[in-house]
Amino acid sequence: MIDVGIVGGSGYTGGELLRLLANHPDVKVVAVTSRKLSGKSVASAHPHLKGLYSLKFEASTAKEVAEACDIVFTAVPHGSAMDWVPDLLDAGSRVIDLSSDYRLPVDVFEKTYGTKHRAPRDAVFGLTELHPEVAKAKLVGNPGCYPTGATLAVAPLAKAGLVDRVVFDSKSGISGAGAEPTETSHYPNMAENVIPYKLTTHRHVPEIKQELTRLSPTIRVSFTPHVVPAVRGILTTAHVFFRPDALGTLQDRAKIAEIYSSFYRNAPFVRMAEGMPRLNAVRGSNFCDIGFEAERESDRLVVISAIDNLVKGASGQAIQNMNLMAGLDERTGLWFAGMAP
Amino acid sequence: MIDVGIVGGSGYTGGELLRLLANHPDVKVVAVTSRKLSGKSVASAHPHLKGLYSLKFEASTAKEVAEACDIVFTAVPHGSAMDWVPDLLDAGSRVIDLSSDYRLPVDVFEKTYGTKHRAPRDAVFGLTELHPEVAKAKLVGNPGCYPTGATLAVAPLAKAGLVDRVVFDSKSGISGAGAEPTETSHYPNMAENVIPYKLTTHRHVPEIKQELTRLSPTIRVSFTPHVVPAVRGILTTAHVFFRPDALGTLQDRAKIAEIYSSFYRNAPFVRMAEGMPRLNAVRGSNFCDIGFEAERESDRLVVISAIDNLVKGASGQAIQNMNLMAGLDERTGLWFAGMAP
Amino acid sequence: MIDVGIVGGSGYTGGELLRLLANHPDVKVVAVTSRKLSGKSVASAHPHLKGLYSLKFEASTAKEVAEACDIVFTAVPHGSAMDWVPDLLDAGSRVIDLSSDYRLPVDVFEKTYGTKHRAPRDAVFGLTELHPEVAKAKLVGNPGCYPTGATLAVAPLAKAGLVDRVVFDSKSGISGAGAEPTETSHYPNMAENVIPYKLTTHRHVPEIKQELTRLSPTIRVSFTPHVVPAVRGILTTAHVFFRPDALGTLQDRAKIAEIYSSFYRNAPFVRMAEGMPRLNAVRGSNFCDIGFEAERESDRLVVISAIDNLVKGASGQAIQNMNLMAGLDERTGLWFAGMAP
Amino acid sequence: MIDVGIVGGSGYTGGELLRLLANHPDVKVVAVTSRKLSGKSVASAHPHLKGLYSLKFEASTAKEVAEACDIVFTAVPHGSAMDWVPDLLDAGSRVIDLSSDYRLPVDVFEKTYGTKHRAPRDAVFGLTELHPEVAKAKLVGNPGCYPTGATLAVAPLAKAGLVDRVVFDSKSGISGAGAEPTETSHYPNMAENVIPYKLTTHRHVPEIKQELTRLSPTIRVSFTPHVVPAVRGILTTAHVFFRPDALGTLQDRAKIAEIYSSFYRNAPFVRMAEGMPRLNAVRGSNFCDIGFEAERESDRLVVISAIDNLVKGASGQAIQNMNLMAGLDERTGLWFAGMAP
Repeated sequence: MIDVGIVGGSGYTGGELLRLLANHPDVKVVAVTSRKLSGKSVASAHPHLKGLYSLKFEASTAKEVAEACDIVFTAVPHGSAMDWVPDLLDAGSRVIDLSSDYRLPVDVFEKTYGTKHRAPRDAVFGLTELHPEVAKAKLVGNPGCYPTGATLAVAPLAKAGLVDRVVFDSKSGISGAGAEPTETSHYPNMAENVIPYKLTTHRHVPEIKQELTRLSPTIRVSFTPHVVPAVRGILTTAHVFFRPDALGTLQDRAKIAEIYSSFYRNAPFVRMAEGMPRLNAVRGSNFCDIGFEAERESDRLVVISAIDNLVKGASGQAIQNMNLMAGLDERTGLWFAGMAP
Repeated sequence: MIDVGIVGGSGYTGGELLRLLANHPDVKVVAVTSRKLSGKSVASAHPHLKGLYSLKFEASTAKEVAEACDIVFTAVPHGSAMDWVPDLLDAGSRVIDLSSDYRLPVDVFEKTYGTKHRAPRDAVFGLTELHPEVAKAKLVGNPGCYPTGATLAVAPLAKAGLVDRVVFDSKSGISGAGAEPTETSHYPNMAENVIPYKLTTHRHVPEIKQELTRLSPTIRVSFTPHVVPAVRGILTTAHVFFRPDALGTLQDRAKIAEIYSSFYRNAPFVRMAEGMPRLNAVRGSNFCDIGFEAERESDRLVVISAIDNLVKGASGQAIQNMNLMAGLDERTGLWFAGMAP
Repeated sequence: MIDVGIVGGSGYTGGELLRLLANHPDVKVVAVTSRKLSGKSVASAHPHLKGLYSLKFEASTAKEVAEACDIVFTAVPHGSAMDWVPDLLDAGSRVIDLSSDYRLPVDVFEKTYGTKHRAPRDAVFGLTELHPEVAKAKLVGNPGCYPTGATLAVAPLAKAGLVDRVVFDSKSGISGAGAEPTETSHYPNMAENVIPYKLTTHRHVPEIKQELTRLSPTIRVSFTPHVVPAVRGILTTAHVFFRPDALGTLQDRAKIAEIYSSFYRNAPFVRMAEGMPRLNAVRGSNFCDIGFEAERESDRLVVISAIDNLVKGASGQAIQNMNLMAGLDERTGLWFAGMAP
Repeated sequence: MIDVGIVGGSGYTGGELLRLLANHPDVKVVAVTSRKLSGKSVASAHPHLKGLYSLKFEASTAKEVAEACDIVFTAVPHGSAMDWVPDLLDAGSRVIDLSSDYRLPVDVFEKTYGTKHRAPRDAVFGLTELHPEVAKAKLVGNPGCYPTGATLAVAPLAKAGLVDRVVFDSKSGISGAGAEPTETSHYPNMAENVIPYKLTTHRHVPEIKQELTRLSPTIRVSFTPHVVPAVRGILTTAHVFFRPDALGTLQDRAKIAEIYSSFYRNAPFVRMAEGMPRLNAVRGSNFCDIGFEAERESDRLVVISAIDNLVKGASGQAIQNMNLMAGLDERTGLWFAGMAP
């Protein structure tokens, strides 16, 4: 049994870790922290979990959490994780950080987030399908939700050297913005609406570039996000422009299918969709569904990926990383279908 | 041309007054106040109004607004209107107050809202169909959204002396809670959800009782509200229990239809629906649609009413009152269909 | 290992059985039928299940299914189940029927559905919390979705002899109407709308009356359903009118709480909610959440129940029944939280 | 007074014409046809219009309609309009066709729709802002919804010779698919979902290409549509790649703003948004809102346009064309705000 702790359990990713871990056969959640809810039951913040946990939120220190746990998930906001992670590591825990604090090289982090990094540490980027080295990591920087969907959509093509450039146009559910009410998340503003934002400057761009240029150094990457009236899910439309010398491959559907299935042959959570990927085929699950179509007489391949932003885009992938770190099959506790309809 | 002012123009009812008045042939909006947005364009708070107004929000006093206007709408929060209304009246304006400050007798108001009334004045309850005396009023207390839908649904039966008791079960869109983001209005909380609240103690109950007991002194009234995933609209299900001596009428569909059409023969905005009333037949409009069905071998008649809470339940009805106060046909500027689909 | 079959696997309840059973530790789904999809993969109708089943839909006879299975779920439409159930039973299977064919006495069924019953059999009404005798049943008539939420909300009060009358006002997600597109389920008709229907004559009324009068012979029952813009879930508002001699109990919150907790002390899936029940605390799960509030100076108690119509209101409850029939803990394979947000 | 007829009044564009024309000061709708609803009231198909029309649907011939009308709108499906238009024209009516039958040259139409054109006629493409010659047209081919939003977003840049290539990624409400229930429009399939479709082959591509290459012969155009959970609206994200010699202009925000305001100086319905365009600022109105942002150190400009697909994307634009054909101010009857929230 792996003793697990969650630092920051009151938000959406904390709640989702609790939901998923409740049915993990090899895990026991022994500590969940929340300063503001200290002493209250888990169900007070997460009514859907009533009856599944007798745990209460606690206001423990990193050292106390680390001493009780083999592996700790940090699910606190960006900029706060760096106040927890070093102490957790020093006290002997392995850590999976769901914030953005350990995903990027320090200089890129500081430029992107406009803040000094107070506690850099070596970390593995936890996009599980691309980084088997998470198995040995002490610290995993769990990827952002957009980078997960975007990178998985295009990685096989990038690796194959086919891509000149890619423009990602992503459509996200609003839960990605967190549990705190905002102007954007106000129901009358979000319902029956589509809200484009940070059209060219979203903070997730460096993660996507980092992963794709690792596979294809010359690839050019652009990214534009939108929020749509959905709670969960990110559907990413990747407009992929092939290199002039790869146009023959572009129109060869079987060849492209083969590139994907070969690249993901050991990745059980990546599914090539029979029709087109849709959010409601992955909702609540750790799957990433992918589909594609080539434009005739063009250099453009359209690739679609669909994930649940709170599962494969956050807490599910974090558990997938934990499984590998603990030497378990990566599907353990995650091998269930999403909810449809 | 009637010169009109709006006190508190940044919220939903203020925005809706502006939307509707932009096409009123006999009205000119000459002033709209907002302390926090003073100096900014109307479109800054209401992007949908861009191009239709050159007005800016101003931080004027009641006296200044009154001097510029024939009629003033007060669309400020409950408890704030009483700081504006007396000065507006004293400076010669007629006033239509969209808050709850002038809908109830002072003692009932104070008990219901748990606060002292600082400036009581004589007012007419502006449920237009039931109060033709608004035509001569200096001050109109525009009804709450729930009381409008509930009262119109049952008034004809109450007047006819048929009703022993009524239980209103209302389903409202979330815009009734206003433009400020809250826990309840947070999209992930509201989407795909139904939220019952204040099951037996909603503040609108005294308005409904006041209106129905005026028509039928012995009627017993209960009310339970819910929020549903919709921006606009209130669908009210009235479970009406007939008096023992009225059970013959209960099963006489033609007779009941006649009671309604007779009661509302001069009320152009009340429509007897051909099928069952639905929110999307009244959305954006000033109509109230009504339908009913009797339960066999029972004393229960189910009456359904549908309104747009921001129009017939607030700003539209306020303009309807204004039309009567100004001697205009009550349909002026309001005689258009809702938006469907 | 229990070998299980599903007759009619292409609809929502069939898909939900497959989703839930995929993670049941003691069950193997060995057959799933669909005449129109015979030969196609389960994922062709249910993309979310891709990777979890290698099964194909088959066009087998009842005899063939029964021979392969210990327990069979029939998830075919009302009126069709009676063509399967007798043969399944005769061939030795135990059967849980999710249609309405085996929930009511024959005479009540025929009057309610306006059709002759071609194959009556003895069956137990599978509202698990009220019918422990399902454990020994050969045939279980799994309850309708509305009756499940309504009956569980009021059963303890009825049993305690407190109730004169109850009016159920239910708000359902549209998935209850099935997987076939209709006028009502057309997104532009359903979004931002509330649709009342069959105000006094819904076919589920006899099931509710049957269960509640079993507990309290004199109770009077009315029921009015609505569809709201949600996929899953039924929130039922029970307006409960207490008997004159029970008004003291009505205002005693602790006493009523005790009545519920005592009645449901062995019912793990019924939870007394800390706040008010909401659809999003039970979505995707087998829980039924219940809350209540008494109206002051009145005879009315408002009780709210929330279930997922496809889980506790259909497929989850069917599996709960199966667990009891198989001598398993009723929570087996069902003890997980719903999905929130 | 202009006597107007609507051929095919039972669908969404027919209903929207009726809604909008009800408040047009210079128009009288004298005929509305529907074979299947002949003899029924307009409100039978469009409950929101109850009380606004005493018209009944009729099953008249083209000749009969033309004799009663000055201008006729044909709102029948693609492929059916060509059975009406010639007869209407021959009988002396001017015609605005909302189908796709008269938007493209015959050869392009036949290739795109895979069907022979039975009755080609000269027509003006009714994208009002780009085709002032509609004023004199006998027959106007009213543009598709996607082409309206896409073309207006990029036309000024194309005209200025700045654009090498553009990739349109559009997000549409489901009402664009019409009033008939389908698999896609089924609420449980559409809610909380995003559905990409016809990723590279949508039939509206030739319209967009036709309009943009008219302004810039060498421009390359790609288009990918999605349906999002909204009833109305199309938000188009145009990923515009500038020509190498235009990169200086790309980073000059004021210059680009000037190009737009100059191009649309006589186009009252095109608004440059203060923030980013959103569907809920144009819902129900004839406005097209536009905004843009340049990517740093790149050749990409992101342009966003938002329209209501049933108004500016269909019936509103049709009336705008009618106004010009009749010598009226193009705003007549259309100068109102959308509905927000």
